[in-house]
Amino acid sequence: MAAPKKVVLAYSGGLDTSIILKWLEIEYGCEVVTFTADLGQGEELEPARKKAEMLGVKPENIYIDDVREEFVRDFVFPMFRANAVYEGLYLLGTSIARPLISKRLVEIAAETGADAVAHGATGKGNDQVRFELAAYALNPEIQVIAPWREWDLSSRTKLIEFAEQHQIPIAKDKRGEAPFSVDANLLHTSSEGKVLEDPAVEAPDYVYQRTVHPEDAPDTPEHIEIGFSKGDPVSLNGKDLTPAEMLTALNELGGKHGIGRLDLVEGRFVGMKSRGIYETPGGTIMLEAHRGIESITLDRGAAHLKDELMPKYAELIYNGFWYSPEREMLQALIDKSQEHVNGTVRLKLYKGLVQTVGRWSEDSLYSEAHVTFEDDAGAYDQADAAGFIKINALRLKLLAARDKKG
Amino acid sequence: MAAPKKVVLAYSGGLDTSIILKWLEIEYGCEVVTFTADLGQGEELEPARKKAEMLGVKPENIYIDDVREEFVRDFVFPMFRANAVYEGLYLLGTSIARPLISKRLVEIAAETGADAVAHGATGKGNDQVRFELAAYALNPEIQVIAPWREWDLSSRTKLIEFAEQHQIPIAKDKRGEAPFSVDANLLHTSSEGKVLEDPAVEAPDYVYQRTVHPEDAPDTPEHIEIGFSKGDPVSLNGKDLTPAEMLTALNELGGKHGIGRLDLVEGRFVGMKSRGIYETPGGTIMLEAHRGIESITLDRGAAHLKDELMPKYAELIYNGFWYSPEREMLQALIDKSQEHVNGTVRLKLYKGLVQTVGRWSEDSLYSEAHVTFEDDAGAYDQADAAGFIKINALRLKLLAARDKKG
Amino acid sequence: MAAPKKVVLAYSGGLDTSIILKWLEIEYGCEVVTFTADLGQGEELEPARKKAEMLGVKPENIYIDDVREEFVRDFVFPMFRANAVYEGLYLLGTSIARPLISKRLVEIAAETGADAVAHGATGKGNDQVRFELAAYALNPEIQVIAPWREWDLSSRTKLIEFAEQHQIPIAKDKRGEAPFSVDANLLHTSSEGKVLEDPAVEAPDYVYQRTVHPEDAPDTPEHIEIGFSKGDPVSLNGKDLTPAEMLTALNELGGKHGIGRLDLVEGRFVGMKSRGIYETPGGTIMLEAHRGIESITLDRGAAHLKDELMPKYAELIYNGFWYSPEREMLQALIDKSQEHVNGTVRLKLYKGLVQTVGRWSEDSLYSEAHVTFEDDAGAYDQADAAGFIKINALRLKLLAARDKKG
Amino acid sequence: MAAPKKVVLAYSGGLDTSIILKWLEIEYGCEVVTFTADLGQGEELEPARKKAEMLGVKPENIYIDDVREEFVRDFVFPMFRANAVYEGLYLLGTSIARPLISKRLVEIAAETGADAVAHGATGKGNDQVRFELAAYALNPEIQVIAPWREWDLSSRTKLIEFAEQHQIPIAKDKRGEAPFSVDANLLHTSSEGKVLEDPAVEAPDYVYQRTVHPEDAPDTPEHIEIGFSKGDPVSLNGKDLTPAEMLTALNELGGKHGIGRLDLVEGRFVGMKSRGIYETPGGTIMLEAHRGIESITLDRGAAHLKDELMPKYAELIYNGFWYSPEREMLQALIDKSQEHVNGTVRLKLYKGLVQTVGRWSEDSLYSEAHVTFEDDAGAYDQADAAGFIKINALRLKLLAARDKKG
Repeated sequence: MAAPKKVVLAYSGGLDTSIILKWLEIEYGCEVVTFTADLGQGEELEPARKKAEMLGVKPENIYIDDVREEFVRDFVFPMFRANAVYEGLYLLGTSIARPLISKRLVEIAAETGADAVAHGATGKGNDQVRFELAAYALNPEIQVIAPWREWDLSSRTKLIEFAEQHQIPIAKDKRGEAPFSVDANLLHTSSEGKVLEDPAVEAPDYVYQRTVHPEDAPDTPEHIEIGFSKGDPVSLNGKDLTPAEMLTALNELGGKHGIGRLDLVEGRFVGMKSRGIYETPGGTIMLEAHRGIESITLDRGAAHLKDELMPKYAELIYNGFWYSPEREMLQALIDKSQEHVNGTVRLKLYKGLVQTVGRWSEDSLYSEAHVTFEDDAGAYDQADAAGFIKINALRLKLLAARDKKG
Repeated sequence: MAAPKKVVLAYSGGLDTSIILKWLEIEYGCEVVTFTADLGQGEELEPARKKAEMLGVKPENIYIDDVREEFVRDFVFPMFRANAVYEGLYLLGTSIARPLISKRLVEIAAETGADAVAHGATGKGNDQVRFELAAYALNPEIQVIAPWREWDLSSRTKLIEFAEQHQIPIAKDKRGEAPFSVDANLLHTSSEGKVLEDPAVEAPDYVYQRTVHPEDAPDTPEHIEIGFSKGDPVSLNGKDLTPAEMLTALNELGGKHGIGRLDLVEGRFVGMKSRGIYETPGGTIMLEAHRGIESITLDRGAAHLKDELMPKYAELIYNGFWYSPEREMLQALIDKSQEHVNGTVRLKLYKGLVQTVGRWSEDSLYSEAHVTFEDDAGAYDQADAAGFIKINALRLKLLAARDKKG
Repeated sequence: MAAPKKVVLAYSGGLDTSIILKWLEIEYGCEVVTFTADLGQGEELEPARKKAEMLGVKPENIYIDDVREEFVRDFVFPMFRANAVYEGLYLLGTSIARPLISKRLVEIAAETGADAVAHGATGKGNDQVRFELAAYALNPEIQVIAPWREWDLSSRTKLIEFAEQHQIPIAKDKRGEAPFSVDANLLHTSSEGKVLEDPAVEAPDYVYQRTVHPEDAPDTPEHIEIGFSKGDPVSLNGKDLTPAEMLTALNELGGKHGIGRLDLVEGRFVGMKSRGIYETPGGTIMLEAHRGIESITLDRGAAHLKDELMPKYAELIYNGFWYSPEREMLQALIDKSQEHVNGTVRLKLYKGLVQTVGRWSEDSLYSEAHVTFEDDAGAYDQADAAGFIKINALRLKLLAARDKKG
Repeated sequence: MAAPKKVVLAYSGGLDTSIILKWLEIEYGCEVVTFTADLGQGEELEPARKKAEMLGVKPENIYIDDVREEFVRDFVFPMFRANAVYEGLYLLGTSIARPLISKRLVEIAAETGADAVAHGATGKGNDQVRFELAAYALNPEIQVIAPWREWDLSSRTKLIEFAEQHQIPIAKDKRGEAPFSVDANLLHTSSEGKVLEDPAVEAPDYVYQRTVHPEDAPDTPEHIEIGFSKGDPVSLNGKDLTPAEMLTALNELGGKHGIGRLDLVEGRFVGMKSRGIYETPGGTIMLEAHRGIESITLDRGAAHLKDELMPKYAELIYNGFWYSPEREMLQALIDKSQEHVNGTVRLKLYKGLVQTVGRWSEDSLYSEAHVTFEDDAGAYDQADAAGFIKINALRLKLLAARDKKG
């Protein structure tokens, strides 16, 4: 493959991606375009611009975008319509952000005439797969460079040496190794590696960054109400919010009540198991609320089909196949199911717990007339149940008669 | 169908099943055999014997069994191997007890020469289906009588009249209607109906019977360790326990910490939605712990297959198809997966929350050598990931090239 | 339930539905509206009008519609997009016609102010379920009358007596019992019952009505080309055809070459097994052709997802759940997959066999550049495969290492 | 990775694997052990021994095994229990042989103290994946060498030169390139590449090697009867046969009648689509017969679950995951279902067609008593169907009422 002439780099402004920036210039003799996204990770972006400038990137090659609304509207919300959890527990906070970053990288490559994109993910994780599959799916001609898989800067010492050699400023606290590695966006914070590598040992308190300890959360429960429209949360306690505002507000509530902590060992797409600490305060509330509103507005047949397909859908996102025909087919199925998922859910937040305690909707399928223990005025004829059972039993009776005989 | 000559009745000793007992004798002129099971519902069984005797049942026709160990070993544990939850949340506490009761009814019918069995479930719920499908699957010749679908005792007043007329003693507090209806066994307590019928309204405190309010739970977390063997919990804090002892102990722990409450609107097999309040303290802990031990001992391929099939498995149990070829086929698949699910999980219990905080096993698939951020001594070659991604991307690139062209 | 005042009857003009017509008038004292559909069953419709008039139905109450185009366009084609086969073999020819009939019955009920619909299906089959579920799904207030489940005309003799008593003309050959029962529409002819009831015995030749015996088919193969657009067949040998024209033409071709015969024992939704002889000449060709065009235009991920979901989709149609949220969700998924399923398939027809022998498309994903045994000019780097395999093997190696140790 | 000291090579005795043999010795300076299997490919094995000796392999390093019975019993039959077809059509004839070869390679490596195995599959196909995943799953320490991915013998000319240079005898007809590539075993013959690379063009007649043209098959149909025990075919026309005898006999019958030809474009695991011509005469008969016997002995619930899981099972085999927990879990499920799949199927073979025309079994679930159009003596109460439908319709009615309102 020909050496790239111009590369769009997913650039955070931190030490590692600054080293990559320089390394790309040196290794390939290419021009570098930086892309820094505000995904709600809670960091200022202007320092990234400064840093890029200082490292010699041309002003017109510095892209800084606030993509929070797009992130929540076009990625997080569609995924939550599916009640997606990976391996029963993980809310896919990192997985869902990668395709958006790749999409922007590829778009900027088209705008700037770049022939390659680059990312700072290592060769052991899932993120490399997610970045690259998305990039190739959006532009089959694009080249993707993953410096961590290529270079020989295989230790902290070598990285620091390289930085010093190329006048890359090193924050004091970055000289030593971080005790663990962090990824964050509006949906979650994940922490892994180093002090977390022994899955037998409880994660130390200082790992958690976004949620208080349940023990330190308020002693009084808080009740909130989330309004849904077509499966997406649109109002909080009666006030309409944009997607990013909604997730921000729920993060605040969840964080305050110690909600959404998860200590998980998961199976990576690249084959090994890893241990992560996830904090998804707002997402955990959203999932519970979404299940709550579906419980009265979604038909059983629709709900069970969704439940059966969810693990596959979650796996596709985890594995990096957001931009694949099968994910899009499943999304069409899921979105179809959400047409009447409207209404309000009342939740109780308390010391790490989030519980649905009430739900109502003009599109409710719950029929007190049918379910009541009282006289139902003929809504339901109990005699029908006898026939229903008899016919359902028929094949079981034929089996029993056969197997007895056999 | 010919009138039954001898009927085995699932008998609790309460007012309703006592009325059924009399009604069966009168309606069919048949002999009644009573079966009362200790499923861990927390009630004395001897009063049921007294009551049956008092109502004229012959001593040899009174069956009282403690089936707790069988219940947990042969029904609850196999189900938990699947991480079964119905509609994302319900642990199937009522559903899983019904097939065992039917199995004993059919066995006792064979022993006593009875040609029918009877139960006290109404025509609106799932339990009638569960009782009857199980009975027919175990004996295709058996007759099943469901008095609630047949008689005209359609109001509390009529029931009380019938009881008075036939000298059935009525406890003082049973004259009025209960504010809600309860089912209980070693796995859970469920409450539904009456005061719970409006799903918009939070369930009143007095509904909960088995768990303290999270707000009233201890202010200090408690850590416990559960040992697993082939997917089943076998020891608690280092002490071996039988299945029923295990669930009893976990119930106590969960109840004390306010764990396992669920307020759910669910889709019944008979077509309507209903609202239930479930308390599954020990089961909630077991599910979390089982997921924890699987996370390090179960391969990703196995785990994902289980996750995809779980909703169908749970639906089968919910719908009453425990004794069906498809449930047994899925069980064979699930049991096959559990051969190495051994080890220990450490959990934190606190005010309604149960969280895995550590897990270890001699059968662990977690390889620190592979996952480490440190030098991995060649355990994993990052260059392999490049090929892995390229080949996975190939079809996406062919698609992108096609769709661009199109 | 109140007695119906006006009933729309699915009326064929034959003896059985004529008896039903009279019986409804007598039993319920109601007005009867007849609906006779041309679904391509190959019978004249005007005689049905005459017969209805003769039986006293008011002219404005006689509905006769040619629904062939609607049938193929809105029911058959969407189903074939899914490659739907029930229990591996059955092309669902009867199942797919029922929802359309119910839809028209309900529409006509609305137009004529009728409060009920009626059909001539028996209480043992699937068709009653299909008619009624569709009717209820389209109008929850409608009453459905199934005379075969209600009346006491339980033998041929009684039916004939009833007909004679009420001046219903009886064709000579209808006095005795037919040797088997037939259903037909543009998609297929099914035969069952009587002489076919022993599944061990080969069906006699005279059962087949729509296809020649393969032995009697031409000794020379015939090649045809079918053009597809978005998954639907739109041209035959270069000539554009409407949906119904297409199926008619393929039926002729298939019939001539003895294609599409099936002798099947199937599991009915009502629990028993039944044996049917199906002839689906055009449909069998369409299925093969559709698989052929998908093989080059559908991505593997999309194709495999479709294959996994097909059995459930087919089961829903077989069981009568065409108008259900889950069928509509699956349809959304399937239709999404067909956007690029365009191109042409060349097939060979010969003595019962239909085989794809060529396929081409501007939307083809087949890349000779990649697959060639010759030099591929760098389209594919074989070294990538090594990494692909290593990463895929990693979890298997970890398993093997663990299990060896254990 | 250290250079291998001793390599077990899957050796056919042909030119290509002879070149590999030499190349391994030269490239790695290692000792080579050859393994030649009789999988029913229809070639003499002794010439392979001669050739290996001639190339200098020590007699004790030459392994020649007849594995036909093992192949059919432990691989083909278990797979056919699932009715496995890949992408709707392919009977997996190549895929299912690879794990057995790898198993023997790994076993022989253990016996001979070899540290590596080698195969002659290219870097573009599925076989490399199948060989290697199986090898790694059986011995995580084994090294696998795939010369086609490593060497620079990238053209026929270079291969011939290498052969001449190293005194490898070259059969006259091997100097030029074969017009297509062939793989064969007892289950099938596959042909691909070269003249078959344009999927629009019908495969030339000379490609087919194992089946006559349907046009040349006998003009008279032949009827056969296959007896099954627990899902496996065990007798033909009343005569008991071993697994390999059975498949051999069915191959002869199928070949004679032109049965089992398939022209397919399929999606490879490595991402591109390829076109293959498959001949699976005996397998095609077995699949039809197995479906036939299941149709009367397998319950609907069991059958549908199998159908839903089949595509995934087939994909696992196609992709090389025979030795994976998920394939073994699925096998446990499938085998569980086959306990009563006993009986006899009668089939008609005629000019490429194989059709079930009769089936009977002592384990039949088909009940003429239930299905009959005649009086059923109370076996089935048609009134039950009314309740069955009403209850199934309830959720649809609630939906319709809601959606009308909305």
